Amino acid sequence: MPNDTRYAAGLDYGTNSVRCLIVRAEDGAEIASAVAAYASGEEGILLEARNPDLARQHPRDYLDGTQKAVQAALELARQADPAFEPARVAGIGIDATGSTPLPIGPDHRPLAFQDRFANNLHAMAWLWKDHTATEEAASLTKQAKREHPEYLAKCGGTYSSEWFWAKMWHCARQAPEVSRAASHWIELSDWIPAVLTGTESQPSRNRCAAGHKGLYHDAWGGYPSDSFLGGLHPELARFRKPLGGVRAKSMNEPAGRLTDPWAAQLGLPGGMPVAVGALDAHFGAVGSGIRPGVLVKILGTSTCDIMVAPLDPPLPDVPGLCGMVPGSVLPGYYGLEAGQSAVGDLFNWWVHRIAPAGATHDRLSMEAGQLAPGESGLLALDWNNGNRTVLADQRLTGLLLGQTLATRPAEIYRALIEATAFGARMIMERFEDFGVRVEQVVTCGGIAEKSPLVMQIYADVTGRPMRISRSSQTCALGAAIAGAVVAGLHPSVPAACAAMTGVKSATYDPNPDSAQVYQELFPLYRALHDAFGTSQTALDMGAVMKRLLEIRDRVRNL
Amino acid sequence: MPNDTRYAAGLDYGTNSVRCLIVRAEDGAEIASAVAAYASGEEGILLEARNPDLARQHPRDYLDGTQKAVQAALELARQADPAFEPARVAGIGIDATGSTPLPIGPDHRPLAFQDRFANNLHAMAWLWKDHTATEEAASLTKQAKREHPEYLAKCGGTYSSEWFWAKMWHCARQAPEVSRAASHWIELSDWIPAVLTGTESQPSRNRCAAGHKGLYHDAWGGYPSDSFLGGLHPELARFRKPLGGVRAKSMNEPAGRLTDPWAAQLGLPGGMPVAVGALDAHFGAVGSGIRPGVLVKILGTSTCDIMVAPLDPPLPDVPGLCGMVPGSVLPGYYGLEAGQSAVGDLFNWWVHRIAPAGATHDRLSMEAGQLAPGESGLLALDWNNGNRTVLADQRLTGLLLGQTLATRPAEIYRALIEATAFGARMIMERFEDFGVRVEQVVTCGGIAEKSPLVMQIYADVTGRPMRISRSSQTCALGAAIAGAVVAGLHPSVPAACAAMTGVKSATYDPNPDSAQVYQELFPLYRALHDAFGTSQTALDMGAVMKRLLEIRDRVRNL
Repeated sequence: MPNDTRYAAGLDYGTNSVRCLIVRAEDGAEIASAVAAYASGEEGILLEARNPDLARQHPRDYLDGTQKAVQAALELARQADPAFEPARVAGIGIDATGSTPLPIGPDHRPLAFQDRFANNLHAMAWLWKDHTATEEAASLTKQAKREHPEYLAKCGGTYSSEWFWAKMWHCARQAPEVSRAASHWIELSDWIPAVLTGTESQPSRNRCAAGHKGLYHDAWGGYPSDSFLGGLHPELARFRKPLGGVRAKSMNEPAGRLTDPWAAQLGLPGGMPVAVGALDAHFGAVGSGIRPGVLVKILGTSTCDIMVAPLDPPLPDVPGLCGMVPGSVLPGYYGLEAGQSAVGDLFNWWVHRIAPAGATHDRLSMEAGQLAPGESGLLALDWNNGNRTVLADQRLTGLLLGQTLATRPAEIYRALIEATAFGARMIMERFEDFGVRVEQVVTCGGIAEKSPLVMQIYADVTGRPMRISRSSQTCALGAAIAGAVVAGLHPSVPAACAAMTGVKSATYDPNPDSAQVYQELFPLYRALHDAFGTSQTALDMGAVMKRLLEIRDRVRNL
Repeated sequence: MPNDTRYAAGLDYGTNSVRCLIVRAEDGAEIASAVAAYASGEEGILLEARNPDLARQHPRDYLDGTQKAVQAALELARQADPAFEPARVAGIGIDATGSTPLPIGPDHRPLAFQDRFANNLHAMAWLWKDHTATEEAASLTKQAKREHPEYLAKCGGTYSSEWFWAKMWHCARQAPEVSRAASHWIELSDWIPAVLTGTESQPSRNRCAAGHKGLYHDAWGGYPSDSFLGGLHPELARFRKPLGGVRAKSMNEPAGRLTDPWAAQLGLPGGMPVAVGALDAHFGAVGSGIRPGVLVKILGTSTCDIMVAPLDPPLPDVPGLCGMVPGSVLPGYYGLEAGQSAVGDLFNWWVHRIAPAGATHDRLSMEAGQLAPGESGLLALDWNNGNRTVLADQRLTGLLLGQTLATRPAEIYRALIEATAFGARMIMERFEDFGVRVEQVVTCGGIAEKSPLVMQIYADVTGRPMRISRSSQTCALGAAIAGAVVAGLHPSVPAACAAMTGVKSATYDPNPDSAQVYQELFPLYRALHDAFGTSQTALDMGAVMKRLLEIRDRVRNL
């Protein structure tokens, strides 16, 4: 037994629960993992019946969950690996959903911990998918277009209602008493490291959340200017003050050291380094072995598509990306984030909400898998939840075209899968059009592991092999990698990724015949995409149905 | 008891059965009605598993059904009306599906009655919905465009695979032994009157079938020229010979008198006049009281939309109509026929083929009825079975637009209903654009009687009251009216219609608020219609989804 085996812990704060993963630093072996659900609300989310846009969380749930998940994981690790003991854990990394900001009082503690705000939804953490700030986001976008177009250029051209400043602004208007009681706001991915390291009075700010959600950029010296924010609302200028002069940090920098009280509570040695936090998707990319040329696709209810690119030569602004931020995913690289608003959600809509008689994902996948590309004559747009990349337009809706009286549910199911694959190809082409080559695709997330049909269609539509990340908990693995790096167990993030991540041996390779048909179908998707998304198209709409029928008839006669 | 009460019989040969209706001539009171199903095949239709386009019927079924239906109706009439006795039936009228041609041998009997053809599907009647002649129809259209564009101008610009010459041509190519054995072909709506009157050797040809399906027109002296038909196939020129010099007749002319053998078989007095036949939809219009200014909509799995217009001044050719034929519906008027390829079929597709969990027409109608116009944000095109009028293009397909992750089955059901209503409005506008004013709409058919939701949406979308024909068997009533006219019981068809038809007192009137929203939605439907159906549109496609969301959000906030 080697006595020098070292481990790192990754803490991953998801939408409904927190996971703790214990990893062997040497090779990334996942020794143990435990999940603790958030206790409050519906699956951890505080909702309000009359406002479907609202989604909040109680900060207490994060702390309680941390203790439970870490203790359970340590116990499991002890059982699984005779070499393991908690003293051998050398570092901790953290990732969280975002933008999930929470208001903090003058005592450096969440307002939610004060008795007077204990039941006030506005004093809680504003979960990433809270959409109450739609108006503020639109106003911010409008104002930035006039005064600071450079702000928008780094986040795809549109500021989202899901993001930092829009949420703070909405709170200032909607719940001024909460806003006034706050001395500042902090992202969940910064708050947890600050709590564990006792640095709440001077918390580190991570580049992922600051850059992609908070309009932070070195080019304009950090966060947006006082005058811009003050022009939106005086409270925003006030909250900007403690952020003045702050330098946002990358994942290879420590946020501090684990305090003794927390060490005791968790059952870990005190004083170990805790890395600066990150957004969950970004650490999902790290846990999938991201590096230049690799596109990591996190395939779930929606997707996150992450790439990195060298800082030199500087990249032009890429329209439609949700963000391009130096140092946000990997230190020393641009972190580039794109995404699709509905993927698994779109398939779930068909199976569970339209719910054709007897339909299940398994059954429809089986039937859809027996269809040849083009055979159904159908074509769909994957916009039931808007379009994140490349159009950055939430006010787009779904489209299904080509149905006849004989069209079956499984044909539509396949058309919806194909629509998301075409959308995925649009994102890849956008990256490449702006000089970021996609040499390899690594997928992770539930769909990547569970749906061979989806993966094969993605390979056929994009004409690229689809690899699958070896880990099934890539976000937590990415966090553990950060912990290993700040503990000095690897000399750099790329070295740690090379040692600790990998892909499964099985890949989905494009079938040449299928890929050929999709080469014919993609221009039709693109024509609809451009016509309905941008008002421009090279193709007559009148040609679309005819062309689909030609392809269908040819495929059926094969 | 008046001793001079007189009756007329209407025989209506539908797709699956024949109906006999006994009507009091004085006021159209429906005394008795009986239906006899065709005995052969699947619900009366001979099918071929490997060819879904094929649909044939055995001529024997028509004759057997006639006897059964008439005898049963007479018996019921005796029970229902003390004044009734068979001797008081003064005339018979006949309508049938069409184009439903059958090949006739040199003995003036159907080839199907010969032993050697007893099981040959090509020797049977070719039912209206047989689509085996698609290629021939396309070739005929192409050739006519070059040589005789005037032929196409009277039938909307495209010759259909469902029609007379295309079917004969297909038979000549596909089953030359059948074609060679035939001395001519006859429409079912002509064959029945010929049989009942013993005029098989010189059968009358009715203007409805000849004009709308057979390219017959007074302007070019009857059927198409020998040289045109011969250029398509020599057999067509041969079949044209016995049609040379034929003058097609209107419904107020007798085909002959009932023969004694048939009188004995049916239990009716011999020698009574039998009217020239008609297409079922045309007599549906007559039974609904058609006259200038009245649009009769026969609402079933598909629709037939019939109008009449004075012959003087002559109408210009109306693009997209399935036919405009002098004397075809009413003597002395243009008969104008339009239609939608899928209406009830479209709703059935959603309920029975996609079959959302728990969906029935009743349940979805109830839920859809609680939605306000525009509330769903959805818009559909009603083209799952192509577009008959105004585009005359079978190679168009369905479209559904505006769906979100929250879209429910009942919302789509309503969007499909609305799509057919918009399609109905396109037809009305086409009539009016060419000078045929729609002053009143009378509906009949299953949907008109059974679906208040559909009727209300039609009223709201078209901004016109929807009246419902008093009779629920308008085709058979129209046939009885023809019987009454040729028997001299009324001086003219209009006089007979005035006396014998009517509408129910309840009408569906447009709701002004709903109509207002549909006024905003119709241009969006029209934009999609024109863009996908004609490659022309005044509206940017990029505006469509946005506009729907604006309307939706406004409606939801009401």
